[in-house]
Amino acid sequence: MAMNPEVDWQTWSRSRQEQVEAALEQALPAGTQSPESLHAAMRYAVLGGGKRVRPLLAYASGELTGADPRIVDAVAVAVELMHAYSLVHDDLPCMDDDALRRGKPTCHVAFGEATALLAGDALQSLAFSVLAHSKLRNAGEACALLADMAGAGGMAGGQAIDLAAVGAALSLPDLERMHRMKTGALIRAAVLLGATCGSEPDASLRDALDAYARAAGLAFQVVDDILDVEGSAASLGKTAGKDAAHGKPTFVSVLGLEAAKSRAEELRAEAHAALARYGRSGRRLTELADRIVDRHS
Amino acid sequence: MAMNPEVDWQTWSRSRQEQVEAALEQALPAGTQSPESLHAAMRYAVLGGGKRVRPLLAYASGELTGADPRIVDAVAVAVELMHAYSLVHDDLPCMDDDALRRGKPTCHVAFGEATALLAGDALQSLAFSVLAHSKLRNAGEACALLADMAGAGGMAGGQAIDLAAVGAALSLPDLERMHRMKTGALIRAAVLLGATCGSEPDASLRDALDAYARAAGLAFQVVDDILDVEGSAASLGKTAGKDAAHGKPTFVSVLGLEAAKSRAEELRAEAHAALARYGRSGRRLTELADRIVDRHS
Repeated sequence: MAMNPEVDWQTWSRSRQEQVEAALEQALPAGTQSPESLHAAMRYAVLGGGKRVRPLLAYASGELTGADPRIVDAVAVAVELMHAYSLVHDDLPCMDDDALRRGKPTCHVAFGEATALLAGDALQSLAFSVLAHSKLRNAGEACALLADMAGAGGMAGGQAIDLAAVGAALSLPDLERMHRMKTGALIRAAVLLGATCGSEPDASLRDALDAYARAAGLAFQVVDDILDVEGSAASLGKTAGKDAAHGKPTFVSVLGLEAAKSRAEELRAEAHAALARYGRSGRRLTELADRIVDRHS
Repeated sequence: MAMNPEVDWQTWSRSRQEQVEAALEQALPAGTQSPESLHAAMRYAVLGGGKRVRPLLAYASGELTGADPRIVDAVAVAVELMHAYSLVHDDLPCMDDDALRRGKPTCHVAFGEATALLAGDALQSLAFSVLAHSKLRNAGEACALLADMAGAGGMAGGQAIDLAAVGAALSLPDLERMHRMKTGALIRAAVLLGATCGSEPDASLRDALDAYARAAGLAFQVVDDILDVEGSAASLGKTAGKDAAHGKPTFVSVLGLEAAKSRAEELRAEAHAALARYGRSGRRLTELADRIVDRHS
């Protein structure tokens, strides 16, 4: 059931985080069931960590259209599984070659490269399975959107641009395009699919959600780049300073630290403005934009 | 349009192969469009090679329910993209570390490991995109089936069992279970989804198709193992003898060569028997089972 709109952010977000943990736990195959190592690697990559930003976006967006959070579960789980798969593959030696994620050894360090590769592959399949088996009004359309946001025109395409950009000087528009694909597309899927779990969004709400998702998604990345410079491995749970060390262009390297901070504030304002006309029903999304900009990890 | 049922196998299969080549070409992103290297790697992995067995199974199954082959295109493309992604990842250094596929350098040899990894990832997404955007009666259900056949309970799970089996002595039932997941699941998806493109299959047709797919899928693998021993790299377009060299259990290593050949014949007979009551409308599937058993590459 939708929660009392008067509960504070802390209570609301904690309750939704617990809800998605339980839903993820249930969606993943049991670690005791064959093939055990694959299942264990999938569970390891998904459970016990992560801020669950994409699920929160889905639930927050569902609140705007009066969706039953139990229906939103499928969207929340699907986007988080997709995100988890992308992290597993991104950490592999042939990509970022990262040993630490969410304060733990990365999946390939814990399970070996081959199993991590397959775990990522199977998590992507599972994301579609959960969405396709869900009670969404149009599960086929939902799968189409998720597939387009995950593929060559979205997340995977953004990763490829990121790869090619190592050591290169990207212009600000090119950097923004890369991040709109690499992280923005899945955030957009979370927001748009979350909203379709309630009353059908009209064109103007869809546009507003799109503008919100675009701003919030980019803000997420700008803040990530700031934290990569200012944060520590202890608070981030991953290797700090790695983007700079890898010669990857970031908002900080392109804009400078202070201008990057101003850009994050501009994007927060854009996210708020996009939902201004929806008043209290946009409250959770607005609060979430604030948390995205104000976070320290 | 469905073809004159009197045309011979050669004409029918060539026409369907041309049709799926054109549909694949259209479904893949242009190599000239950014990110170019990712798109080029995806196209390289899919186009210009391959027997297109899974698409042929989808079209042949569609004939049984009177489907318009243009509707079956989406199924044919989706299963072939899924198959192509699995080959790209399977060939990676952390998996089979193979340098030759379909007579050409493997995708990671041609494009580098990171791009090959992402190309595989994006091909999986694209498979779902094509199916979800299709004109199938129930695209959501189709995506659910494809996802379950591709994931931890299907293809990816079979790969994981295969990994764990290197150097181990598998029993015949375990070997068959592995292959039912690793290659059988996607063959089953091709057959079942192809049939849903025409008039709704009833329970007994669904059972018959399932029995057919199970037999044909296993036959495909048994013959693969026989060819791995008897074939040459020139006729196979891939490294021969690699399974034995990798210490992987095969039907030949478990059963012996002659018994493996008898098993292939048994499975051919099972595939024929499953469709016997459907007479001429099952003709293409029956012919395809023959081609699977009689092939030399």
